[in-house]
Amino acid sequence: MIVLYGFGGVGRTFAEVVYSRTNLKISAVFDSKGGAMKCGGFEKDEVKTLLKAPRGGVSELGVGARASLEEALRCAEVLVDASPPNYSNGEPAASAYRLALKSGLSVVTANKAPLALYFPEFEGKPVFYKATVMAGTPVVDLALGLREQRPLRIRGILNGTTNYILTRIDVDGLSFEEALGEAKAKGYVEPDPAIDLEGLDAAAKLAILANTLGARLTLGQVHREPLRYLGPRTKYVAEADLEAGNARVVPARLEPDDPLLLARYTTNAVEIATEVNLVRVFGKGAGRLETSLALLNDVVKALRACK
Amino acid sequence: MIVLYGFGGVGRTFAEVVYSRTNLKISAVFDSKGGAMKCGGFEKDEVKTLLKAPRGGVSELGVGARASLEEALRCAEVLVDASPPNYSNGEPAASAYRLALKSGLSVVTANKAPLALYFPEFEGKPVFYKATVMAGTPVVDLALGLREQRPLRIRGILNGTTNYILTRIDVDGLSFEEALGEAKAKGYVEPDPAIDLEGLDAAAKLAILANTLGARLTLGQVHREPLRYLGPRTKYVAEADLEAGNARVVPARLEPDDPLLLARYTTNAVEIATEVNLVRVFGKGAGRLETSLALLNDVVKALRACK
Repeated sequence: MIVLYGFGGVGRTFAEVVYSRTNLKISAVFDSKGGAMKCGGFEKDEVKTLLKAPRGGVSELGVGARASLEEALRCAEVLVDASPPNYSNGEPAASAYRLALKSGLSVVTANKAPLALYFPEFEGKPVFYKATVMAGTPVVDLALGLREQRPLRIRGILNGTTNYILTRIDVDGLSFEEALGEAKAKGYVEPDPAIDLEGLDAAAKLAILANTLGARLTLGQVHREPLRYLGPRTKYVAEADLEAGNARVVPARLEPDDPLLLARYTTNAVEIATEVNLVRVFGKGAGRLETSLALLNDVVKALRACK
Repeated sequence: MIVLYGFGGVGRTFAEVVYSRTNLKISAVFDSKGGAMKCGGFEKDEVKTLLKAPRGGVSELGVGARASLEEALRCAEVLVDASPPNYSNGEPAASAYRLALKSGLSVVTANKAPLALYFPEFEGKPVFYKATVMAGTPVVDLALGLREQRPLRIRGILNGTTNYILTRIDVDGLSFEEALGEAKAKGYVEPDPAIDLEGLDAAAKLAILANTLGARLTLGQVHREPLRYLGPRTKYVAEADLEAGNARVVPARLEPDDPLLLARYTTNAVEIATEVNLVRVFGKGAGRLETSLALLNDVVKALRACK
C-alpha cells in the first residue's frame, strides 16, 4: 500500500501509472488541503474520481475517509512524495519523511528539497530518490554504483527548462525574452521562476548527486548566478569540486568540442570524474511520465528491500 | 566473509583492494588448480603470501587449509567470481553459482559467461553483476533503474580492445596489423583473441544488458561478424532491437555526428532507447582496479541485501 503525498501533475500521473501498469494500490492521497484514505486501497474507479478533483480538493470528494497523515501511515509500506519543493526548510515534506520512517515505512521521493537540505539525516535509511535528479534517467543509481570509487568532480546540465531556453537562443536564433516566453507557455517554468532561472533546481540536484557519491554538500553551499546568455555555446553549468568542497551553478560558454554540448533542449547531462573513471550520462531530465516511472521503479525497490 | 573464485589479474587486484580499503575479509581463494581456506578469514600478511603464488599455485603455499568449494562456502556470505569466461557452457563458474546460491550465499561476478548464457536461471536471485558490463561504469545499475520504462533498443561500443584498435587506425593512422600488435603488446587482447576480435565479449555484454532491461536474449542469438576496418568512423557496434528480438555485433561506419564517436580508445559507450527516453552513457569499460571496485560495490550491496 502506498501513501501518495502530493497530487499535482506528477502525483496524478503516478496514480494513473500505478493503476494502469501494476497490481499495487494507493491507500491514501494528500494534497495541500488534506487527505483521503482507504486502508485496503482505492479501487480503480475511486482513483478515477480522485483524478477529477480540483487542486486541493481530494478530501472534499467523499472518496475514502478524511485522514491525517499519521492515520494514513498505519495502512501502508511506502510514502511517495510528489509534493512541490520548499527550498527554505523542506517542509512539510521533511516532517512527513521523519514520521513515515519512524512508523517503519520507506520513503520514495521526487521532491528535491528535503534531501538537498538534510541529506545526512536521511542517509542509510530506506529513502529512495532517483526521481529527484534527471527524472527519467537514473543517474542516482549509477552514482550509487560508483560509491567505491573516490569521487573528484561533478559537472552537468541539470535543469531542463534553462537548457531549453539557451538551446532555443543558441541553435534556433530566438531572443532571450522569446525563448523564456515560449518555455513559460509550454509549462516548463516552475510557478516560482527563480527555482529554474536562479539555479535553485540545478543546485539542489548537484547537492543530491554529490552526497550520493559520498561527498558532503548542502544547497546553501552552492554558489549561484542567474541565467544569462553569454554568446554561442552558453550552457547553465552546475559543477562541484568534491575535493576542494566548492560548487556553483553559473552560465558559461563551453569550448566547441565540449561533450556537454550534446545536451540540447530539455536533455540533461552529467559528468562524474572519479579516481579511475570519467563517466558521462545524457538523457531526459523531466516529464511527468518519466518522473512517475522513476518513482514506480523506486517503489518496487523499496517493497523488496530489507526493513 | 568472501570466497574469491578466480585468482588472475582481477582476482588479485580485488584481494588487494579488499585488504587495503575495507575491513572485509576473504576466507577462501580458488584458482584453476585448487583452493586455500581459513574460516575466520585470512590476515593481511597471509594475503600478501597468497598474492606471491604463481598462477594455479594458491593451494600449494601452506597458507590456510586446502579446501573444496563446498567446504569453503560454509564460512562465507558472498562468492566473488573473477574467473575467466567460458562461453561454451559457462563452467565451472555456473555450477559454482548454483552451489553458492543453494548454500544461502550471494554471488558477485565479473565473469560474463554464466549470465550471458543462462540469465533467466539466475534472475531474481542474489546475483550481482555490475562488473560484467563496462567494468568501472555501472551501466547495469542504471539499466535496473530503467526497468519500469519499456525498453526498445540498445546500441553501443561494448568492447574496449577492439575500440582501441579501431581508434588507433582511424584517429592515429596505424594499419590494422600495427594497431592489433600494439593492443596485444599492451595486454588488452584476451588469451583467446576471438573473444575480442569475433565479438563474443561484446555480444555477451549485450545479452546481459538486454536481460537487465527485462528483455530476453542469449549469447547464441547475437549475430556476430569479425572486426574489420571499413574506412573512416568504423566502430564495432553492438546493437539489439528488443521488440523485434534480433541483435548483432558488427563493424559499421557511423555518421559524422553520431554521439557514439565520442567513445575513443578504451572508452565504452551505450545508448538505451525506451518508450520515453534515450539514455547515453560513456565511461571506462575495463581495467583491473575499475573491475575490482565494481566487484567491491556489489559485495557491499550483497551484504546489505535481504536473504
